[in-house]
Amino acid sequence: MRVLVVGAGGVGSAATGIAARRDFYSRFVVADYDLSRAERTVEAVADDRFVAARVDASSAEAVAALCRAHDITHVLNAVDPRFVLPVFEGALAAGADYLDMAMSLSRPHASDPYRQTGVKLGDEQFEAAPAWESAGRLALVGIGVEPGLSDVFARYAADHLFSRIDEVGIRDGGNLVVEGYEFAPSFSVWTTIEECLNPPVIFEKDRGWYTAEPLSEPETFDFPGGIGPVECVHVEHEEVLLIPRWVDAGRVTFKYGLGREFIDVLRTLHKLGLDSTKPVRVGNAEVSPRDVVAAVLPDPATLGDKMKGKTCAGTLVTGLGKDGTPRSVYLYHLVDNEWSMREYGSQAVVWQTAVNPIVALELLAAGTWSGTGVLGPEAFDAVPFLDKLIEYGTPWEIREQ
Amino acid sequence: MRVLVVGAGGVGSAATGIAARRDFYSRFVVADYDLSRAERTVEAVADDRFVAARVDASSAEAVAALCRAHDITHVLNAVDPRFVLPVFEGALAAGADYLDMAMSLSRPHASDPYRQTGVKLGDEQFEAAPAWESAGRLALVGIGVEPGLSDVFARYAADHLFSRIDEVGIRDGGNLVVEGYEFAPSFSVWTTIEECLNPPVIFEKDRGWYTAEPLSEPETFDFPGGIGPVECVHVEHEEVLLIPRWVDAGRVTFKYGLGREFIDVLRTLHKLGLDSTKPVRVGNAEVSPRDVVAAVLPDPATLGDKMKGKTCAGTLVTGLGKDGTPRSVYLYHLVDNEWSMREYGSQAVVWQTAVNPIVALELLAAGTWSGTGVLGPEAFDAVPFLDKLIEYGTPWEIREQ
Repeated sequence: MRVLVVGAGGVGSAATGIAARRDFYSRFVVADYDLSRAERTVEAVADDRFVAARVDASSAEAVAALCRAHDITHVLNAVDPRFVLPVFEGALAAGADYLDMAMSLSRPHASDPYRQTGVKLGDEQFEAAPAWESAGRLALVGIGVEPGLSDVFARYAADHLFSRIDEVGIRDGGNLVVEGYEFAPSFSVWTTIEECLNPPVIFEKDRGWYTAEPLSEPETFDFPGGIGPVECVHVEHEEVLLIPRWVDAGRVTFKYGLGREFIDVLRTLHKLGLDSTKPVRVGNAEVSPRDVVAAVLPDPATLGDKMKGKTCAGTLVTGLGKDGTPRSVYLYHLVDNEWSMREYGSQAVVWQTAVNPIVALELLAAGTWSGTGVLGPEAFDAVPFLDKLIEYGTPWEIREQ
Repeated sequence: MRVLVVGAGGVGSAATGIAARRDFYSRFVVADYDLSRAERTVEAVADDRFVAARVDASSAEAVAALCRAHDITHVLNAVDPRFVLPVFEGALAAGADYLDMAMSLSRPHASDPYRQTGVKLGDEQFEAAPAWESAGRLALVGIGVEPGLSDVFARYAADHLFSRIDEVGIRDGGNLVVEGYEFAPSFSVWTTIEECLNPPVIFEKDRGWYTAEPLSEPETFDFPGGIGPVECVHVEHEEVLLIPRWVDAGRVTFKYGLGREFIDVLRTLHKLGLDSTKPVRVGNAEVSPRDVVAAVLPDPATLGDKMKGKTCAGTLVTGLGKDGTPRSVYLYHLVDNEWSMREYGSQAVVWQTAVNPIVALELLAAGTWSGTGVLGPEAFDAVPFLDKLIEYGTPWEIREQ
């Protein structure tokens, strides 16, 4: 296996650090638009299987050329979701398999955005499935932590815990705080605004996919690991589009534990139009208000050593157990920031995202997982993946509700 | 009397429209940095006493030169408070009297900003009082509605209603809504942020001036005219600096009826640093976050025809009445936006600000009001001013509490 990671930001660098401890590949190319960033990531692992390169992720041709130059067999896309399609297309053009952690972006319904879906997350990738199948190549989409591990949990529940699933509800929350800042998000605020203010998508078996108001249906979910109750709201997320394709469930939702304070901040930014990406004129400059919000807040990638707390990703499944009686379980994965900083020098949220595609690559290298076309994580047997996580030293758990 | 209005924005234009119906002056020059804006204001009144001019309000020399060119006797400053000092200095240099509606800006105490005052509102103007006195010229500062009419009310209460004043509390609120916008302030958001997030100043007779936390001591005040209860908080305002100089009161405060929603918006902007005027780098541009907030919101000066509701400015006075028994009265002035739009084509808040300096100019022209030095509205007899307001068709009222 010869891997190309596109993007040497937080997640790409963490994935590189995790991969450096494994031996399932012979070559690992780390590419970024900023070559010096890729070089720093490669220098940090000090391992001659690793090579830095420069790439323009907005160009499928550039991605394909880099694949060919290094005989790449697997492309791991670790850049901003705006570049999903060119990296995805570049991999196929070069005859490589492909993995990503976020899917092609949605576009809201033109006239009824808070009730009907428009172009859904991943639609543009699933449209290309016949081309991937006929080329005999695999695109494993949404294989970070959420989507990713959360989808694996859903498949595990369907195979081993339930005879009937009424609802799969992803619930993500944490208690990370950044010391010394009045307000400092633990994840890219640009992306958080994008996913939280897009119309959230919900799946129901007899209705199909539909949308709701942003930040709607608040509920308080009690997270494990000492995190405790956090206010969660509907958010647009890939699991809702992926899980129903392979797992039989009455309803699929994603609720994000933003907490009351962050929800209020997002509502205010939206009310004032400060979430907008459309440039406004300010003096002689033209700037996007959302970029200004990102510029005034501290960069979360640089805050790992000032953070304290844990992040939790998990899947709440409700239905009938194997014995036909009502059952509800929360399958989850916790990362303590202190642990991930000490062990890998990576912030918890970033590390928790990055470990999953490396586990998946190892299963693909061994042939434990295989397939062609455009497939989600729940298209594969969950057990070897969950076993591998334990082997990587980062266990998952089950809580009966 | 030959008047120069500096600034043809909302207030300057409204003042021009109000003055056009009066005959106490022979010349009225309307000047703006943008000559075309001044020309539009002059064209709207179609009266040959009015002339448009261009001026740079940041230059005392430019203001003085324009005064000399038109033999100006009185300068009315209607620009942003950042330009108070050059307009104030330019008027004195040219031997003209001066009026403004906001005073020179404050600077917080360097080490203890939320308990002690630093440079206070108007300090830099009062320091120049000896120069105005020796030149025999008058600077009548803070003669809009608040400060302005609110100060006149305090003087009226001291002269005619009370034998002892325990507290003068300015209370400003309204129920203006802008149709078709989720969030649209009815007054300049830049100035609102400035006054609401600066440390508010409070006066107590035995303690002097001191400061508090922004937006502190929320109270619900029941406004008249059908407005009803609105949440009010401490805000930095000129009255607190002016009233104690001429009126004997135990305590002076200013509380602004921002309402819960606006208070939350201001708190969020502050928490994120979006209230800052310090430029941040965004791509290749450098912008001040507060300017971006102003740029994404609709311009309140253009929204008069979409607004509905009333604005109320008033002074709550508590103490002992002339008969020595406890008394509490609210002296107030209401403007209905529908009335001000129909009668003058001006939005209510802007019109309510603009009428007061025109009344004051008329009293100065008649010699009813006279003086030298730097004086607040409460330095003059309140009765002729309040009578004149009624003559202008915009009555004030008293409510016993």
